[in-house]
Amino acid sequence: MFPNRAAIAAAAHSLPICDSASVAAATYHDADLTKPAGALARLEDCIRHLAGWQQRAVPRLDAVAILIFAGNHGVTARGVSAYPAEVTVQMVANFQRGGAAINQLAKLHGATLSVTPLDLDTPTHDFTTAPAMDEAAFLAAMNRGAAAVPAEADLVILGEMGIGNTTAAAAVTAALYGGDAASWVGPGTGVAGSALAAKISAVDAALKLHGDAMRDDPLEALRRVGGRELAALFGALLAARRNRIPVLLDGFVVGAAAAVLAKLTDDGLAHCMAGHVSAEPGHRRLLDALGMQPLLDLGMRLGEGSGAAVALGVLKAAVACHAGMATFSSAGVSNKSE
Amino acid sequence: MFPNRAAIAAAAHSLPICDSASVAAATYHDADLTKPAGALARLEDCIRHLAGWQQRAVPRLDAVAILIFAGNHGVTARGVSAYPAEVTVQMVANFQRGGAAINQLAKLHGATLSVTPLDLDTPTHDFTTAPAMDEAAFLAAMNRGAAAVPAEADLVILGEMGIGNTTAAAAVTAALYGGDAASWVGPGTGVAGSALAAKISAVDAALKLHGDAMRDDPLEALRRVGGRELAALFGALLAARRNRIPVLLDGFVVGAAAAVLAKLTDDGLAHCMAGHVSAEPGHRRLLDALGMQPLLDLGMRLGEGSGAAVALGVLKAAVACHAGMATFSSAGVSNKSE
Repeated sequence: MFPNRAAIAAAAHSLPICDSASVAAATYHDADLTKPAGALARLEDCIRHLAGWQQRAVPRLDAVAILIFAGNHGVTARGVSAYPAEVTVQMVANFQRGGAAINQLAKLHGATLSVTPLDLDTPTHDFTTAPAMDEAAFLAAMNRGAAAVPAEADLVILGEMGIGNTTAAAAVTAALYGGDAASWVGPGTGVAGSALAAKISAVDAALKLHGDAMRDDPLEALRRVGGRELAALFGALLAARRNRIPVLLDGFVVGAAAAVLAKLTDDGLAHCMAGHVSAEPGHRRLLDALGMQPLLDLGMRLGEGSGAAVALGVLKAAVACHAGMATFSSAGVSNKSE
Repeated sequence: MFPNRAAIAAAAHSLPICDSASVAAATYHDADLTKPAGALARLEDCIRHLAGWQQRAVPRLDAVAILIFAGNHGVTARGVSAYPAEVTVQMVANFQRGGAAINQLAKLHGATLSVTPLDLDTPTHDFTTAPAMDEAAFLAAMNRGAAAVPAEADLVILGEMGIGNTTAAAAVTAALYGGDAASWVGPGTGVAGSALAAKISAVDAALKLHGDAMRDDPLEALRRVGGRELAALFGALLAARRNRIPVLLDGFVVGAAAAVLAKLTDDGLAHCMAGHVSAEPGHRRLLDALGMQPLLDLGMRLGEGSGAAVALGVLKAAVACHAGMATFSSAGVSNKSE
C-alpha cells in the first residue's frame, strides 16, 4: 500500500536488483546444451532475464499472471476514438465471459487472467480542461494495480482496455519525453482524418494546460494526463519489481505507464521485457527512448495484453529448450572446442 | 514418386493453388470478431494463409508435422565448419533420444517430429571438385523428402541438420541469384577468420566449376552444389504443395532448398510462410529476393527447424483467437460503424 507520493518515491529508489548469481548459473547451464553457443540468441537472453529475476538457474513459466486494467476517459468527449466509450465496459464483460483475444491467448498458454475494472462509471476528467484524476483517485488506482499482483508468479503480463487511452498514453509520453503531440499520437483503434486531428488537438491542449506542472515530475504527468488504468499499470509494475517478478510489457499504453517508472529511476524497468512493438507509431518511438528491443514486430494494435501474450510463446519456447535439452556430455555430441 | 526430372518439372508446373473461397470465408469470420478490424495484423494474414491452403474458414493446427532431414557433405574436408562432420550423426541420435532443441519445441506445441537421416555414412562428393550427387542419389534424396510428408497434416515445418550445409546453401543461392560467394556465405555454426575464408573459397570454387552447367537450371544447381537434405527438403516442399498443406519454412538451408522451387515456377512458394529470419546473413538476403517477410527476427541460427517451431507459437496464437473469440453480435459489443 502506497499512502502517498513519498511512499512511491521511496519504493522507486530502493528497488531490488537482478540476481547475478542466477544469471551466471543459467549461462553456465546454457553453455553445455547441445547447440552452438549463442545459437538460440534472443531466447538465451530471455532465459538470463527470467533466471535473474526468478533467482533460478533453470527458470520456469508455470504460473504466469496476465493482469488487465480497464478505465474510462473524459477526453473521449473530444471525439478522439473510433469507438464509443461504452465499449470499455462491454469489453470488460467480454473478458469476463472469455470471448476476447486475450482469453484465447491465456488459455493457449495456461496463464491466469485477472481483469480489474476501475470505476468505469466515473470516467476521469477531460484532461484538456482539468487534471484527469485528483490525488485520491490517482493513489487509489495505483494501489489497485499494486494489489492485483500475486505475491508469487513466474511472470506477469500487463494489459489494458480503455476507449481513449492511446490519447492519454500519447499525452503522458509527450510530457515525459518532449516532442509535439503529433509525434506521439497515432490512429489507436483506427481514427483518421478529423478524428485524428481532434486527438492531436486534445494532446496539444493537455500539454499547454499541464505542461508546467508536469515538468520533471513523472507521477504528476501520470495523474494529470494519464488515466486510472495507466496509474494501475504503474502500480502493478512497481509491485512486481518489489516481488522480483519479471514483467512482459504489451503495447503503447502499458509502455507509457512503464515509462513513468523509467523516468523516476534509471533502472526502473530492469525487470521488464518488451513483448512486442505495436503498430501505434508512438510505441516504436517510446521503445527506442527506453532502449528496449521488442520480441515481436507483427503489426498488432489490439491492447488487452495481447501482443505480450503472443510473445509469451517465445518465452515458453526458450524455457522449454533451456530446461529440456540434453547436454554435450550426456548426449555424446562433440563440441566445437574438442 | 518422381522417377526423373521431367516428372519434377511437370509437377512444378501444375501446382494446386490457394482456395480463395476459404480465404474469403475466413476474412468474413474475422471481421465479426470483437476487435478493431485489422488489429491482429500479421496474425490475421496467417489465418488467411492457413485457411486458403487447408480449405477451412476456421483453420486448425491440431496435426503439425515437423520433418527434419539430415545429410553429410564432402565439402567439410575443406574445413568449412566449426564442428567435425561426425556431429551430424550424433545430433540425429540426439533427436531420436529427444534431447535437442527441436524435441522440446515439438513437445511444447504438441507437434509430431520425424527425422530422416540420408545415407550419413556416405557423404556427398566435395562439390569443389565434382557434383555433390549423381542423378540417382539426387532423385533418391528428393523422393525420400517427398515420401516423408504425411498425406494429411494441418501444417508442415521443415528443418535440417548437416555439418557443412550452410556452405551448400550459400552455393545454391549464389547459383540461383548470382552475386559472389562472400555475399552468401556466413558464419554458420560459428566459423570466422581462416575457416570463413575457406568457406568462401569453397563456394567460389564450386561456382567456377559448375557455373555453366547450373545456369538457368535450378534442379541442376541443387544436385551439383546442394546436398541430400536440401534435395529432400525440396521434395518435401513439392509434396506438401501437391497435398495443399501449408508449410512454415525455417532458416537459410531450408530457404535455399525452397528457392529452387521458386525459381522453377513463379508461385512455387505460395503455400509457404517464412517462420523466422536467421542470423546467417544470406538468409535475410534470400528472403528479400523471395519477397517473404519472416514472422520472427530473434537472431536464431540453430537449424533443426527450431526458428519455425518457435514461430509455430505465433500461428497457434492466431488460430486460438480466430477460432475462440466472441463476435460483436454475440458479445453485445458496439462495433465501430454503429
